[in-house]
Amino acid sequence: MTTLNETHDPALKSWVGSANTAGCDFPIQNLPFAVFRRQGSAEAFRGGVAIGDQIVDLAALAQSGVLKGEAAAAAQAGAQDKLNALMALGSSAWSALRLALSRALREGAAEQAALQACLVAQAEAEYDVPARIGDYTDFYTSVHHATNIGKQFRPDNPLLPNYKWVPIGYHGRASSIGISGQQFRRPVGQTMPPGATEPTFGPCKRLDIELELGIFIGSGNALGEPVPITEAEDHVFGICLLNDWSARDIQGWEYQPLGPFLSKNFASTLSPWVVTLEALNPYRVAFTRPEGDPQPMAYLDSAANRAEGAFDIQLQVGLQTAQMRAAGQADASICRTSYRHAYWTVAQMVAHHTVNGCNLQPGDLFGSGTLSGPTLDQAAALIELTTGGKNPVALPGGEQRTWLEDGDSVVLRGWCEREGAARIGFGECVGTVLPART
Amino acid sequence: MTTLNETHDPALKSWVGSANTAGCDFPIQNLPFAVFRRQGSAEAFRGGVAIGDQIVDLAALAQSGVLKGEAAAAAQAGAQDKLNALMALGSSAWSALRLALSRALREGAAEQAALQACLVAQAEAEYDVPARIGDYTDFYTSVHHATNIGKQFRPDNPLLPNYKWVPIGYHGRASSIGISGQQFRRPVGQTMPPGATEPTFGPCKRLDIELELGIFIGSGNALGEPVPITEAEDHVFGICLLNDWSARDIQGWEYQPLGPFLSKNFASTLSPWVVTLEALNPYRVAFTRPEGDPQPMAYLDSAANRAEGAFDIQLQVGLQTAQMRAAGQADASICRTSYRHAYWTVAQMVAHHTVNGCNLQPGDLFGSGTLSGPTLDQAAALIELTTGGKNPVALPGGEQRTWLEDGDSVVLRGWCEREGAARIGFGECVGTVLPART
Repeated sequence: MTTLNETHDPALKSWVGSANTAGCDFPIQNLPFAVFRRQGSAEAFRGGVAIGDQIVDLAALAQSGVLKGEAAAAAQAGAQDKLNALMALGSSAWSALRLALSRALREGAAEQAALQACLVAQAEAEYDVPARIGDYTDFYTSVHHATNIGKQFRPDNPLLPNYKWVPIGYHGRASSIGISGQQFRRPVGQTMPPGATEPTFGPCKRLDIELELGIFIGSGNALGEPVPITEAEDHVFGICLLNDWSARDIQGWEYQPLGPFLSKNFASTLSPWVVTLEALNPYRVAFTRPEGDPQPMAYLDSAANRAEGAFDIQLQVGLQTAQMRAAGQADASICRTSYRHAYWTVAQMVAHHTVNGCNLQPGDLFGSGTLSGPTLDQAAALIELTTGGKNPVALPGGEQRTWLEDGDSVVLRGWCEREGAARIGFGECVGTVLPART
Repeated sequence: MTTLNETHDPALKSWVGSANTAGCDFPIQNLPFAVFRRQGSAEAFRGGVAIGDQIVDLAALAQSGVLKGEAAAAAQAGAQDKLNALMALGSSAWSALRLALSRALREGAAEQAALQACLVAQAEAEYDVPARIGDYTDFYTSVHHATNIGKQFRPDNPLLPNYKWVPIGYHGRASSIGISGQQFRRPVGQTMPPGATEPTFGPCKRLDIELELGIFIGSGNALGEPVPITEAEDHVFGICLLNDWSARDIQGWEYQPLGPFLSKNFASTLSPWVVTLEALNPYRVAFTRPEGDPQPMAYLDSAANRAEGAFDIQLQVGLQTAQMRAAGQADASICRTSYRHAYWTVAQMVAHHTVNGCNLQPGDLFGSGTLSGPTLDQAAALIELTTGGKNPVALPGGEQRTWLEDGDSVVLRGWCEREGAARIGFGECVGTVLPART
């Protein structure tokens, strides 16, 4: 079973004062990774680690000579413009770098002066997609989402017979994945309006969000060599937030028989910070099956997965319309849920994806699928929150939404908290809808 | 409309004598691209152009200084270990290199001695996947395949209502795409046997081939900026052969509602040589719709696409069992068809893929989908040839096959011929099934 170590000690404080503030997403117990540079500069992007409102610049850190051994090699790998090389090093290297940074960033650390010289303020930074994503696979791990959306696409057959046996997933588009702050045009395409006999062409009328987690693969596996579930988590670098924007009207017309395509691949938005599995260890929970559901097949089952394969990551979706933005109004919460409700775990996704011999590579991305919880206020997409557009969501200022309108911004947030552990957060994942191209 | 130029002249002969042999896939009118190195060497892979039984080494050619201007820049870009940089240069650069090579390889060319020094025998070469494939999209452009396979998966509803309106496609897996010669283990996974109430787990029992063409994207488009059909072919670098191996029993159980996943992503095999669209120009044919079928929507329609958007590429599938190999017997033909039967063209695939703003990147790969023609002997997968495993295919030596067995090799071949034009070929795409991992 997973053991916590000194880096998880909730009593740790950093000499970076902002890291010790209540509610800060990036205390010293977190130490997530991103790639960044100074805003508007011609600097190369490079890896960084968040601490409070600062970033430890891994390129500067690697040059400083402060770290030794495996941690130094990890910092050097993280100094590149994408994190793939660091991801490829494996969990021992990530862990060594985390421990070294935890020690060097603690109050009283001898390395304070040297590390201070490697800090860049987050307020001055811009971010990029943290890895060259070779392949992106989107899973479908919320049984609540699958049931809710299934009711609308297939009223007589909402949850298909394979759902409780197979961690359903499909391949997604890597090229259109962007980083928080992404603005994208409303997609246009073919749709079949209800009752029509021929499809029409035009801007999407049912533009939706999907609150997901993004799971970055660290070390890969060779083609033909499955990853057993007992080793699956060793291949996972970390987790971020993911908004899998969806054009429901395009999806409804195109998705049979080969799955969603243009309804999903116009844009997907990631949060910049990737929280490592090690940082998430204190927030593990048991993975259980509802009474009467089949138990996972052997290749999807292990004692560790049952005992602590799930993560209690708190999630929230905020919506800010153009009118709210103009009025200086913050986004309004439209969903609050947790990753603990997922039907399949991260380890099960890895084991399933590779059981046929498929090879994963460092920097590959998994989407968790839309993470709806069991109740309506935990529904993680407008198609569920509004019951297919029938019941609009009320917003401050008298506005309401069935689907996203031009100018809408969506903010995803995630965090973990638990008695006896620090609170850590994922930062924000923001995206904005631009009008369709004319 | 497309005009032919001096490089297409069927009377042209090369000073590389093997290029002038009847039936040779690589006469001077072809000049396809691959990446290669000497077998078993530690050399870097680099781009090459086929001529007869030889390869023009683009790295050596770039160093030689024989070429000038845009052609020299293209050769330099093609000297890398993947063709992405050459692909990104665009059609003017590819065309300049083709013209320069055509002139330098002709009988009597002044450049003969210099080019001779850049030749490597194909018999001594090994190949790699020609591009870093950022994203792989598999289409479904044969209405005959869609109907045949639809009958088996959905007997009451073989051809879905969207088929004649939407060039159906889905995202595939890039990491497991290999080059001709690929050997892969039979995949294992979950299947639901007919009549069973619970799925079982084990090696695939319905392993199949899919004869497809692979279409490499050259220059890309920016996110949010669709490629109009009138410009679509400018973004296409060339075409190769593709075997999209498929595990039908795994597919049948997993594919609802998000499409095929583990049933397809264990291996896909490409032929090494990519034939440029310019080389394919003499073999264009009109794109027509059967009487009564809807005409393509405006974004999928153009005068050029109607007049000559399709390609008459002859295709063949050969099967060689382990017993046949041991007896020194060549592969037996089990399918003969043509790409001209496809329901959607290359230009329509590009226009559709980008109409929602999705960005394509140099080196992206499209699969055409299984290219079954209208009759049974033109069926391009065993699931069709055997009517779902009911009617085995007879092979020499008394063997027969319903599905692929361990040790089977499959050979795809493609070529173009037409009166008044040279015959050009695609070479071979070979893959072999290894036993499942135990």
